[in-house]
Amino acid sequence: MEEINKLVTDGLQEFIPGEWAVPSSLLEAMRYSLMAGGKRIRPLLVIAAAESLGGSREAALPVACAVEMVHTYSLIHDDLPAMDNDDFRRGKPTNHKVFGEASAILAGDGLLTHAFYSIAQASRRYHVPAENTLAIVEEMSVFAGPKGMVGGQAADMEGEQGITSLDQLKYIHTHKTGDLIVFSLKAGGRVASASLEQLRALETFGRSIGLAFQIQDDILDLIGNEEKLGKKTQSDVAMNKVTYPYFIGLEESRAEVDRLTKLAKEAIGGGTIPNPDRLLQIADFLLNRDH
Amino acid sequence: MEEINKLVTDGLQEFIPGEWAVPSSLLEAMRYSLMAGGKRIRPLLVIAAAESLGGSREAALPVACAVEMVHTYSLIHDDLPAMDNDDFRRGKPTNHKVFGEASAILAGDGLLTHAFYSIAQASRRYHVPAENTLAIVEEMSVFAGPKGMVGGQAADMEGEQGITSLDQLKYIHTHKTGDLIVFSLKAGGRVASASLEQLRALETFGRSIGLAFQIQDDILDLIGNEEKLGKKTQSDVAMNKVTYPYFIGLEESRAEVDRLTKLAKEAIGGGTIPNPDRLLQIADFLLNRDH
Repeated sequence: MEEINKLVTDGLQEFIPGEWAVPSSLLEAMRYSLMAGGKRIRPLLVIAAAESLGGSREAALPVACAVEMVHTYSLIHDDLPAMDNDDFRRGKPTNHKVFGEASAILAGDGLLTHAFYSIAQASRRYHVPAENTLAIVEEMSVFAGPKGMVGGQAADMEGEQGITSLDQLKYIHTHKTGDLIVFSLKAGGRVASASLEQLRALETFGRSIGLAFQIQDDILDLIGNEEKLGKKTQSDVAMNKVTYPYFIGLEESRAEVDRLTKLAKEAIGGGTIPNPDRLLQIADFLLNRDH
Repeated sequence: MEEINKLVTDGLQEFIPGEWAVPSSLLEAMRYSLMAGGKRIRPLLVIAAAESLGGSREAALPVACAVEMVHTYSLIHDDLPAMDNDDFRRGKPTNHKVFGEASAILAGDGLLTHAFYSIAQASRRYHVPAENTLAIVEEMSVFAGPKGMVGGQAADMEGEQGITSLDQLKYIHTHKTGDLIVFSLKAGGRVASASLEQLRALETFGRSIGLAFQIQDDILDLIGNEEKLGKKTQSDVAMNKVTYPYFIGLEESRAEVDRLTKLAKEAIGGGTIPNPDRLLQIADFLLNRDH
């Protein structure tokens, strides 16, 4: 995983636009959040999905970098004063605290737009068929767009007035966090020319670990170690945010994480995916993480 | 032009996501700005460029709608308090004045992301070759991204500390406004499988009318009719924004508009573009407009 993390970090350096072409203030703000570290879970999933079908790591890299750009843009915009108004992220001051709101908005816009350039490089540099790459573009626009991540974020903002049901919370988790994880897996599959059956297996895997990941986040916010997390715990409680533990209790939430992880493993372990080992490891890592 | 305006408006209705899938608050905010009217110059250019090469209007429509979504998102974000802090746009309250800042940020993000979905429909619905559509995606991400429109906007924000040269102003105009116009023309060309020579001619045409259009905006802000413009004039003066007339005077600015229009017409009038008439009319329209 560290090897892939380094590959992705180097890839991000390569795929973000060169300094000569971009105002330095904008580039600096984009780089600040993109290079702030983080777990790089989504790029890892893109690459692991491609490799699980015998695809090449290099061909998956442009898409892996793209999904990290989209994830990073979403964090920058979510942290803005008008949104969640967060001062720290990954243990560092948030983008707008360092560069100001205008730059943070533009850095987010720039990363989101440039992500599609990065996707296109899968065909330009690594000969992924144009049909596959275009399908990845289309799916990114759905899973990250109004029906996907942006829709989830909008529902989350509305929910601050009061989430009244577990279904509503599930909708937010599904779209705000889950969709980009599902995208990562399917896009990795498409780089390796996955069959429809394989795409479905990757989708079920992604949908399950995505929700498990988010419930785990809720649990960690409640009982995690602040130092390891790099952020304050109990922020959900402080913000009056309802979470899985709020609705179904801590133990039941943990059981749900276990159930979803089992479901995820079954989806890709049945023989449809030739080399599922790395993906299975990631599922375990997500289930057992403490930060 | 009215016919195409109606076609684009109907297309936008069709291409924005259905209500069932998107939180209503988000959809309402996206629609508000997208349907606020405007001149629809960029979609018109996409369609006119495609038709100038014998391409079909229908096949160009998804890309035409995409460029209007990108243009609209850029206006929503530019109007935000942290950016230009504008209360009115096209004679109506700006997005954040109606829906709040968080919704305006998300509506912009949603429109930008969904634009790439709309582009992909050129292949999905109208059988434009995937290679062409992917080239359009890639070019959109460059012309609207950090090297393009977002870069221009970042330079414009920096410039509020003081623009000291015409070159600096030209950089802002080129990227903030010009790039999306050049994109529109080339993308329309690509829908109709333009040759490299034709793409170059469309680029020169777009680059010239793009700058002319922006100088014309500067002129209209200085001496235009507020009622026709739907916004206050002399806002540049009030905001201490430097403009073309500021650097080279009003008459010289007008002469520059004429010179650029002539250059634009020569680029596409020499026989490279089979049916340049509509494009030539648009150039005249832009030169002679009073709002």
